[in-house]
Amino acid sequence: MKKLIGNAVVGQSGGPTAAINATLAGVIRGVLENVGDGAIGTLYGMRNGVEGLLEERLINLNEYFADPAKLDMLEHTPAAALGSCRKKLPKLGENDAVFEKLLAIFKKYDIRYFFYIGGNDSMDTVAKLSAYTKNHDYEMCIMGVPKTIDNDLVVTDHTPGFGSAAKYIAVTLQEIIRDCAVYTVPAVTIVEIMGRDAGWLTAAAGIGLATGAPVPDLVYLPERAFNKEEFFADVRAALAKHPNVVIAVSEGIRFADGTYVCEGFGIASTDAFGHKQLSGTGKALEHAVKAELGCKVRSVELNIPQRCGAHIASATDIAESVDVGREAVRAAASGVTREMMTILRDSTRPYRYHIGHSDVSAIANQIKAVPAEFINARANHVTLACAEYLLPLIAGEAAPTYKDGLPQFLIME
Amino acid sequence: MKKLIGNAVVGQSGGPTAAINATLAGVIRGVLENVGDGAIGTLYGMRNGVEGLLEERLINLNEYFADPAKLDMLEHTPAAALGSCRKKLPKLGENDAVFEKLLAIFKKYDIRYFFYIGGNDSMDTVAKLSAYTKNHDYEMCIMGVPKTIDNDLVVTDHTPGFGSAAKYIAVTLQEIIRDCAVYTVPAVTIVEIMGRDAGWLTAAAGIGLATGAPVPDLVYLPERAFNKEEFFADVRAALAKHPNVVIAVSEGIRFADGTYVCEGFGIASTDAFGHKQLSGTGKALEHAVKAELGCKVRSVELNIPQRCGAHIASATDIAESVDVGREAVRAAASGVTREMMTILRDSTRPYRYHIGHSDVSAIANQIKAVPAEFINARANHVTLACAEYLLPLIAGEAAPTYKDGLPQFLIME
Repeated sequence: MKKLIGNAVVGQSGGPTAAINATLAGVIRGVLENVGDGAIGTLYGMRNGVEGLLEERLINLNEYFADPAKLDMLEHTPAAALGSCRKKLPKLGENDAVFEKLLAIFKKYDIRYFFYIGGNDSMDTVAKLSAYTKNHDYEMCIMGVPKTIDNDLVVTDHTPGFGSAAKYIAVTLQEIIRDCAVYTVPAVTIVEIMGRDAGWLTAAAGIGLATGAPVPDLVYLPERAFNKEEFFADVRAALAKHPNVVIAVSEGIRFADGTYVCEGFGIASTDAFGHKQLSGTGKALEHAVKAELGCKVRSVELNIPQRCGAHIASATDIAESVDVGREAVRAAASGVTREMMTILRDSTRPYRYHIGHSDVSAIANQIKAVPAEFINARANHVTLACAEYLLPLIAGEAAPTYKDGLPQFLIME
Repeated sequence: MKKLIGNAVVGQSGGPTAAINATLAGVIRGVLENVGDGAIGTLYGMRNGVEGLLEERLINLNEYFADPAKLDMLEHTPAAALGSCRKKLPKLGENDAVFEKLLAIFKKYDIRYFFYIGGNDSMDTVAKLSAYTKNHDYEMCIMGVPKTIDNDLVVTDHTPGFGSAAKYIAVTLQEIIRDCAVYTVPAVTIVEIMGRDAGWLTAAAGIGLATGAPVPDLVYLPERAFNKEEFFADVRAALAKHPNVVIAVSEGIRFADGTYVCEGFGIASTDAFGHKQLSGTGKALEHAVKAELGCKVRSVELNIPQRCGAHIASATDIAESVDVGREAVRAAASGVTREMMTILRDSTRPYRYHIGHSDVSAIANQIKAVPAEFINARANHVTLACAEYLLPLIAGEAAPTYKDGLPQFLIME
């Protein structure tokens, strides 16, 4: 394939993470450092992903980031500086008007390179755009750049953004375990962690197994059916050992019949407005344990802070996220197209990786579950192998710059 | 008063904070550095406060902390390393057996100094023990050392532990605001913050007013009655300005009739076990706003992590907390007794303080509310004066030591 010469556009899509801006910074650095050797002229940023691209809400990033201090700040800013969207493109052939419109915009701005930073749904956009542009005379390079705290993309060893969320969870669990240890009265604390389909984030609660640091007594992932009787028995056994029991659960755990635990335990609840109120998984288990064991129980939902905790981001994750962005530019300019960038692990101890890329159509819309060897036989904890796999991903602390006690984040108006 | 010569005992009581161990470290440093000039021999630590003291569960802290590295680690460890309790001593004259038992233990271990680190309830213990020992021939020095994330003790300008919780809240709000800003779809995010009677912690959400950093659109403190109609009007007005509205609320906000908002909005809810389920304030408002405005609404309860977030502790708070502990030893050895240590602010810009002490009987069982000049006229935000008062308390980052990506906390077995 001949080298394309033209402009580029980059966008962010899907849920926020602490590292998606680091990847954006990597793409910008790649262009500003000219790793594409003259292939890319102007790098545009689309506001709110393809949603804003369709409205031509573009920003010239070469100009905006001429000041390197802004780029440094971007690297440590959580969420998505360009804005995000959850727009799903139609199936090819169903309503091609939207693709035609995108193509017209690419032509108008002389855009030959499309970089899309996102998770599973965003890779669907990349795959569709790849397929559409393949059959047109306007040659384009379409690249997926992964990010998701869920770590559920296939082929890549792990995803940018996961390490920082995992570190937030692992650190916060260390603190919660200390907090729970102060009283002598028997008490159960249930910590609900994100991850509807894959248990990677919840598994991070058990990372201390690899270092000798404290871990929750019990850890439940969505990869295994949740058994109520075994759960109560496990909680009783833990309480018999010490008065303060800490349990980490994924929001997505389900009973054997496929019912979510939050539905099965909490469905009868109705709020003051008469609406059925689906409590969270942690809250549902809190009530269940209270009813069954009668002891003090509380639940903590880590919620939004776990995905945007830039102040405790993993230095490894931030560095890799920048790398993945920069390497996407290099790969694209060298003729790679319709691929998603990947991180490939070379060794765990010492931790080494390299960056690759792989056919995006084989990645989109698939989910990588936590493998069997990472979950113990009783399905109530992770294994040492799991903790050792996760440990290098949370190494190092990538703190933002502070002024007057507050982190300095970049806000692109 | 003549100088007492003897041993000392120190305990921790009430809810965990990120800084109560820093104060313990300060007391230990005071003894090891001999600021009492020979007054104190052995410093004992009581496990689980007076609860453990009554069972003579004591630890020799001079020996345990002979290694200075352990003391450094203690300073950055959240919760309460000695363990805590919520034991309330009986009124004097009602059941003096418990006081007699304590006095016997003091005599047995030659303990002449009693340091109790805690909040409102703990100062009640200090006040009662002060009153009891005053009328006995065994001379003792009884000292209260303040800590509480709630910042609701009178006389002292603020309390050790508050600054770190305030910093956790201020930093997390910066991240949540960025997280919420990524989509174009109208959405309301309600963040529930601790503080049942006083709104100091919730006020910290508005600290950005003093620096130009983003702040929540609306901030509701328990010091003002919560008006449902004004609230809905304020949310509508905020949504008219931008699509992503962030609201900080104290868990303790009440309607004008004294009903907690979480009761008034959520009381009809019954869970699968038939139990009345009192949802949190944030959850109750989430449902109320959804029903009233029909837009996307979510709630985030900062919960336990806000009080034990040692990884983002305020350097100012940690330094002051150590100071207060050390100065308690110095004051006690110089003849001060039956007082609580205080932090007195000399100036805000530049921030300067000195450490004092004040009659504990005038402090116990009182609550310091956020003053009128710190709340705006509409009662839906804090004032600039409030943010400027709070700002120096979150200055600096006091991080723990990390190993393999995890914070190193001291665990006293």
